[in-house]
Amino acid sequence: MDESQKVSDLGEVELLRRIAARIPGSQGPEVWSGDDAAVLHSDEPEMLLTTDMMVQGLDFDLDYCTGGDLGYKAIAVNASDIAAMGGRPRHAVVAIALTLDTTVSFVDDFVDGALAACDRWAIGLAGGDVSGGGEISVSVAMTGAPVRTPAVLRSGAQIGDAICVTGSLGGAAAGLVALRRGLRSNGAVARLIDRHLRPTARVEEAALLAASGVTAMIDVSDGLAMDLGHLLEASRAGCRVDAGAIPVDTDIEALDGIDALEIAVIGGEDYELLLTMPPEAVGGAKGALERIGTPLTRIGTVSEDEPYVGPRSLQEWRDSGWQHLRGR
Amino acid sequence: MDESQKVSDLGEVELLRRIAARIPGSQGPEVWSGDDAAVLHSDEPEMLLTTDMMVQGLDFDLDYCTGGDLGYKAIAVNASDIAAMGGRPRHAVVAIALTLDTTVSFVDDFVDGALAACDRWAIGLAGGDVSGGGEISVSVAMTGAPVRTPAVLRSGAQIGDAICVTGSLGGAAAGLVALRRGLRSNGAVARLIDRHLRPTARVEEAALLAASGVTAMIDVSDGLAMDLGHLLEASRAGCRVDAGAIPVDTDIEALDGIDALEIAVIGGEDYELLLTMPPEAVGGAKGALERIGTPLTRIGTVSEDEPYVGPRSLQEWRDSGWQHLRGR
Repeated sequence: MDESQKVSDLGEVELLRRIAARIPGSQGPEVWSGDDAAVLHSDEPEMLLTTDMMVQGLDFDLDYCTGGDLGYKAIAVNASDIAAMGGRPRHAVVAIALTLDTTVSFVDDFVDGALAACDRWAIGLAGGDVSGGGEISVSVAMTGAPVRTPAVLRSGAQIGDAICVTGSLGGAAAGLVALRRGLRSNGAVARLIDRHLRPTARVEEAALLAASGVTAMIDVSDGLAMDLGHLLEASRAGCRVDAGAIPVDTDIEALDGIDALEIAVIGGEDYELLLTMPPEAVGGAKGALERIGTPLTRIGTVSEDEPYVGPRSLQEWRDSGWQHLRGR
Repeated sequence: MDESQKVSDLGEVELLRRIAARIPGSQGPEVWSGDDAAVLHSDEPEMLLTTDMMVQGLDFDLDYCTGGDLGYKAIAVNASDIAAMGGRPRHAVVAIALTLDTTVSFVDDFVDGALAACDRWAIGLAGGDVSGGGEISVSVAMTGAPVRTPAVLRSGAQIGDAICVTGSLGGAAAGLVALRRGLRSNGAVARLIDRHLRPTARVEEAALLAASGVTAMIDVSDGLAMDLGHLLEASRAGCRVDAGAIPVDTDIEALDGIDALEIAVIGGEDYELLLTMPPEAVGGAKGALERIGTPLTRIGTVSEDEPYVGPRSLQEWRDSGWQHLRGR
């Protein structure tokens, strides 16, 4: 194949045919791509629905993000939102805007990346839309089935609940720093970069947590300070978080000049689950997650106090956090 | 309010608060905006899901498209896809990318337009995402409930079926021509412009047609020649269409220098329903649609012939049709 072939050489009809040919259809009675809408089946009375958009220049940089990375991440971040409701992702539709000079091989790679992520979390890629634009952007919408009814909201945290987080924090933002510095090679740095480019949605963990007494949950997309703030605001509660307890990604040590705690608190895009549960439920949940290899760490307690993470109020952390529209 | 205030003045957190405050929440047990995903209820075993994206410069031009127009149309075109499956739209999620210099009043207007369309077709605006970008783009994903099971696909047309279309064709593309010519005032031109900026999704019509023996259906978004081609290809059939029978929008006469038949066949964006049904069912369907004020016109017959619309093959028409990625 000619690697330099552009989508504008191919035209929309041929491009759509090419994409459709790469995407496996439904194996059952469902109808996925190829009609005006997908026809999906469900036995559940409750359904989850979310959408998340990624825009070139703001959410990804083509200097280091391949088509495959983009497709993978666009699926992963939506799966993470479904997981944060205590749900299992089921179907995705993907809308992508391409520039005229986007290569066909980028699009092929994008589809492969999206399919790899769908395969990992058992998601049906049920349809989409392709458009043109002055920059590449991707919007995914995803459905999910709650593991329990009612679904796990942000608003259920109770005073006295333990605040816990899966995995570790700060790695994805550190990976972005590494990419911007042009670093690539060694093991720890490669892992950080992978966390940024191909995040893991905590789907299995969410299912176990939903069955383990979790009272409120959110995924860490905007950073711990921001997302903990969202959860507490919805629950009308405060907190005390022990900065020393925060599971900072140890790979960050491989980068010079980074305040590991700060990047763990405000970095964002780790897609870990941040949750609350009664203190007595933590042991069981921890055990359940350990069996699938994922740490669960208690970092604090829901309280009536003004929310603090270590020495700074959440507000102080948040003021330095990520705000898309102001740039970073 | 300061009309010149930009979203970059407001910041992401405040902008999201402002948008959330305009959007009514669920009146029932469902959870719409404000969490990681919406929680939706359904009693139906089948669900429809679609997505459609609109990008500045390609799908709309801010010289004549207001925020309200954009919000309205983004919902309408997705509702039209659901209608084309014989479904009723139920919920939408909206992802929008804004430029730093987008005004806050544009965003307010966008939300109002989206809500007006949701209100018109009884759609719950259940969530969304706001991002930044170098251009404005909107992706909507929409769920729907089929009026009948199985849903109406493109692939069900039978040899001998009548080919019918709702309403009239060519008006939306003529409206775009009028906008590009800077025309505004008179009645017919204003109606054409309205067809382009605020299209009608044929939701009620679809429900009546689904109950009237329709065998295949698609909405006319890319133009009659293109969309009839999609339907026939999916049904592995050909056709004969009588060009003289095509219900050309009579308002087009108000514009000079337009070949009304050509724009009706290749213009696109009319969002009428194009469908097939046994010839003996046409009378009943026509009567049902007439009672809600919408014409249904038989324009041809599904056959084994190479598809022709009047004197030209569908392929000849299609070659001159709209292809996003080649520009127009």
